[in-house]
Amino acid sequence: MLNPELISLENQVFRCYLGWSAILILKIFAAGIYTGLMRFFTAMASPVELLSLSNPVFKSFTFWVGVLVIKMLLMSLLTAIQRFKTKTFANPEDLMSPKLKVKFDDPNVERVRRAHRNDLENILPFFAIGLLYVLTDPAAFLAINLFRAVGIARIVHTLVYAVVVVPQPSRALAFFVALGATVYMALQVIASAAF
Amino acid sequence: MLNPELISLENQVFRCYLGWSAILILKIFAAGIYTGLMRFFTAMASPVELLSLSNPVFKSFTFWVGVLVIKMLLMSLLTAIQRFKTKTFANPEDLMSPKLKVKFDDPNVERVRRAHRNDLENILPFFAIGLLYVLTDPAAFLAINLFRAVGIARIVHTLVYAVVVVPQPSRALAFFVALGATVYMALQVIASAAF
Amino acid sequence: MLNPELISLENQVFRCYLGWSAILILKIFAAGIYTGLMRFFTAMASPVELLSLSNPVFKSFTFWVGVLVIKMLLMSLLTAIQRFKTKTFANPEDLMSPKLKVKFDDPNVERVRRAHRNDLENILPFFAIGLLYVLTDPAAFLAINLFRAVGIARIVHTLVYAVVVVPQPSRALAFFVALGATVYMALQVIASAAF
Repeated sequence: MLNPELISLENQVFRCYLGWSAILILKIFAAGIYTGLMRFFTAMASPVELLSLSNPVFKSFTFWVGVLVIKMLLMSLLTAIQRFKTKTFANPEDLMSPKLKVKFDDPNVERVRRAHRNDLENILPFFAIGLLYVLTDPAAFLAINLFRAVGIARIVHTLVYAVVVVPQPSRALAFFVALGATVYMALQVIASAAF
Repeated sequence: MLNPELISLENQVFRCYLGWSAILILKIFAAGIYTGLMRFFTAMASPVELLSLSNPVFKSFTFWVGVLVIKMLLMSLLTAIQRFKTKTFANPEDLMSPKLKVKFDDPNVERVRRAHRNDLENILPFFAIGLLYVLTDPAAFLAINLFRAVGIARIVHTLVYAVVVVPQPSRALAFFVALGATVYMALQVIASAAF
Repeated sequence: MLNPELISLENQVFRCYLGWSAILILKIFAAGIYTGLMRFFTAMASPVELLSLSNPVFKSFTFWVGVLVIKMLLMSLLTAIQRFKTKTFANPEDLMSPKLKVKFDDPNVERVRRAHRNDLENILPFFAIGLLYVLTDPAAFLAINLFRAVGIARIVHTLVYAVVVVPQPSRALAFFVALGATVYMALQVIASAAF
């Protein structure tokens, strides 16, 4: 998936990503330490209702799920637009004129469909694990930034994959930021449930 | 996706859909006004436990998720039936006789698979956003009718797509009813979480 | 999907599956009776918080969702490994050398993608219905074993489909164990919500 030549400090896109990744990681560490100290001094106040909008972690999760659901549903529209543009219809009953035939291999349609499938593979598991992660009562600052990272990374993923095609490290990096955050949440959830 | 000639009042299927859409929309408006008045007179009784079956909104959501999960899982069976009927197997280990070869392009199998994929793209995001929508404590009558609209529209979608092929405005209308209801819920969820 | 010749007591793989299925079913019945008696004698103690990790049913669900999310996300990696091994890339921007062309039909890549899609079709509905099933407050022993059955069956499904190809009754049996457990939960959820 990676073009090795593009992973170089000469590549401006890559340099920009590296910078933002470093900032994000530092911010997450700082958040962890900050929240740890806050918890210590506030005597570990446990929220009464984790699934209430007064819990900032749940509020953030709710916001990003809403945004990502809209984003995913827009993929259907993007596919439809590409289908009409290239007159590529998969069902005989969708053909608008008797001259057209069903077609399955238009590269523009298939690109949007691959991006959409990648969403199904990555965003939907995030919805499930994110809710359970909220219920493990994680440190707010860390959790909110993880949700933000997933949300933004998946929007970037769609933009560089299906809207404007950007050379490679961009899609792979967006993919791995969201994957990493989701895997982290899953490991935390497993740790909470296993012990 | 739409055959423009079929969107006409001459088309009985379309007339029928228009009528039902109008009834549904009027019902939703009436429900909104009714619930608003009820809330006013009952001093905004907030349910203690939103995720309990004594909350009619959650009860309705639970019911429709159950029905749609069964419907989705039946798609696998429908695919299997088509595979056996047309002897189209995608894996060498599935071939029942040495004379058969793997095949990927049977139109009947692919039609069911497209319907199934459309379910993944639309029903699964509904599951995630529907639960969060329940947690925003929406007006019961509206919420219950939205869940009903999604549930029925997605069953109709499967019937006209993969069981009996019905000419086009039907599938597109079923698709857009469910999409519209899901987008509405997502926007409500975002509004609750953002402010 | 089934090779009829392999469904015979001569086949050791099939004998082994039969044995384990029987044990699992007996265990589930025993658990149901045990839990029924326990409930009777403990005066139907209803847990205060069903979605807390002190509820063993929710704890088990949480654990298996975590494990299955990790498993599903690993499928992307498995696909990537197969893509690099066979030099099959679907996007022009992914090609690592100008000599390569986009390719879509490598059997190894497609096999992993089929296994991944099967996960989307079966594991994601389980996530939705499993959570609602926890909220119906089911008998702990039965619920925990159902989650276990789904978790283990889906891991076996991936192993025999996409890692080491095992002759047929194995994948079909793993598929149907998970499907059966999910359908059972969905029916219980519908029954709780409908009456």
